[in-house]
Amino acid sequence: MSDAAIHAVDQVVTLEPTGENTVRGRTVEAWANMVGPFGGTTAATMLNAVLQHPQRLGDPLALTLNYAGPVADGEFEIEARPVRTNRSNQHWMLEMRQGGEVVTTATALTGLRRETWSETEAVPPEVPAPEDLKVATSFRTVKWLENYDMRFVSGDMVAADQGSAGGDSAGGAAGGAESSTTTMWIRDVPERALDHLSLTALCDSFFPRAFLRLGRPVPTGTVTLTIHYLATADEIAAQGSDFLLGSVHANRFHANYHDESAQLWSRDGTLLATANQLMYFKS
Amino acid sequence: MSDAAIHAVDQVVTLEPTGENTVRGRTVEAWANMVGPFGGTTAATMLNAVLQHPQRLGDPLALTLNYAGPVADGEFEIEARPVRTNRSNQHWMLEMRQGGEVVTTATALTGLRRETWSETEAVPPEVPAPEDLKVATSFRTVKWLENYDMRFVSGDMVAADQGSAGGDSAGGAAGGAESSTTTMWIRDVPERALDHLSLTALCDSFFPRAFLRLGRPVPTGTVTLTIHYLATADEIAAQGSDFLLGSVHANRFHANYHDESAQLWSRDGTLLATANQLMYFKS
Repeated sequence: MSDAAIHAVDQVVTLEPTGENTVRGRTVEAWANMVGPFGGTTAATMLNAVLQHPQRLGDPLALTLNYAGPVADGEFEIEARPVRTNRSNQHWMLEMRQGGEVVTTATALTGLRRETWSETEAVPPEVPAPEDLKVATSFRTVKWLENYDMRFVSGDMVAADQGSAGGDSAGGAAGGAESSTTTMWIRDVPERALDHLSLTALCDSFFPRAFLRLGRPVPTGTVTLTIHYLATADEIAAQGSDFLLGSVHANRFHANYHDESAQLWSRDGTLLATANQLMYFKS
Repeated sequence: MSDAAIHAVDQVVTLEPTGENTVRGRTVEAWANMVGPFGGTTAATMLNAVLQHPQRLGDPLALTLNYAGPVADGEFEIEARPVRTNRSNQHWMLEMRQGGEVVTTATALTGLRRETWSETEAVPPEVPAPEDLKVATSFRTVKWLENYDMRFVSGDMVAADQGSAGGDSAGGAAGGAESSTTTMWIRDVPERALDHLSLTALCDSFFPRAFLRLGRPVPTGTVTLTIHYLATADEIAAQGSDFLLGSVHANRFHANYHDESAQLWSRDGTLLATANQLMYFKS
């Protein structure tokens, strides 16, 4: 099978074992970001080093990715160590290296799940169906966005541009949108049945909140991302290739850093995951 | 100076260097939880292994703690490795071990911060002053709670008990409060000027949301906790020993796990930190 026949998500997470706890992979051009690959696929690739480890117990519960340095185009090695295996869960520590230098670190938690009392207290935003919204195209300045069908409900980059009145930088007015919230439908292009890998990448698919509030692109970068998988594997599989509803906002922008808090929902109101990240920004 | 003259927070984070990247500490009885020590102090102790490392660059930006297994009373070793040092930030990987077994893992991020455009988009809950609220005492079933002056605004355990109508377990009605939100003022007893260490412990001071929704204590345990320090060291120091306002809620309870999302505010409305955790629970 040629590469073209393999979905871009499956291409980017492909890893070849090189030792008991080590695997080798390589970046994929289809996921190119401004510098290096899209961070969502780096997260998915790290997760896959856990998923394909022969000692893995259960499904992903949590993943924290730390983007330590730029990932260069080309090969990388991932070391994924199961540092503690309990009866129903397992703790992992991971490092991605290139040329002997650590470029990404992570911890992951996998586990078995059983039925308990269940309730979703959070409420998804009320939104039009994705079929009633336009496919976002105008902001496609980076390659990886071509792998997604995004349909903005609110808080797209056009809104940010329109809000801009030339306000600027340090200590000054923001000049962008009044709210950092973006709500959008999103799915893979071409369509692909959702799994923990694609869900992980989707958790990092929101553009930086600083762009929206400042009304213009500024230097930014995710430094750390934590995903909590609140849905079971069955619920994730039930999603098929349908759109997910993502909503994200920032709580505070201050002194080079801002947070981002996201929820990812299925169309039928299942809260699949939360993603909390800390981003570096300059203004 | 005798131990009694050292604040319990400072006692529990005391670490003695044993190698380039290793330190030794011990649990402190004043922080005893149902099993092992209060997880907030484990987090603070891990952070202190970073703070007192001679190669540390900047202040804490993020910390993810993974509670891999019970911490036994007594000595432990922490290995804190600075795996990547950049111009303005530094990435850390940590393991706490007892008897050769990993009991806690963590990643931390420290960094330098400069002035940028700044805005707090989140809004603190409207609440009475702590002076107008009663000191919570009735729920003091574990030792570590004696180190805190907690004053509940909403969502205390009494509210949970009153809501209980004997509803039970798997698939059934909750029987507790309708909302998982707890809002409270909290500070150290005796009073102590806030720093990253005490703030870290405070981030884990909320009782489990499952208790509140189910209206009764059930087996629970934090499996992973991520703190984003949204305030600078100056802002944290400016807090002095005043009460912090903490508010926490869960988004989803499902299949043995629920999330918790918390914000910690100063009295003057500075968002100091967010804390997101995943808890195991049985029902």
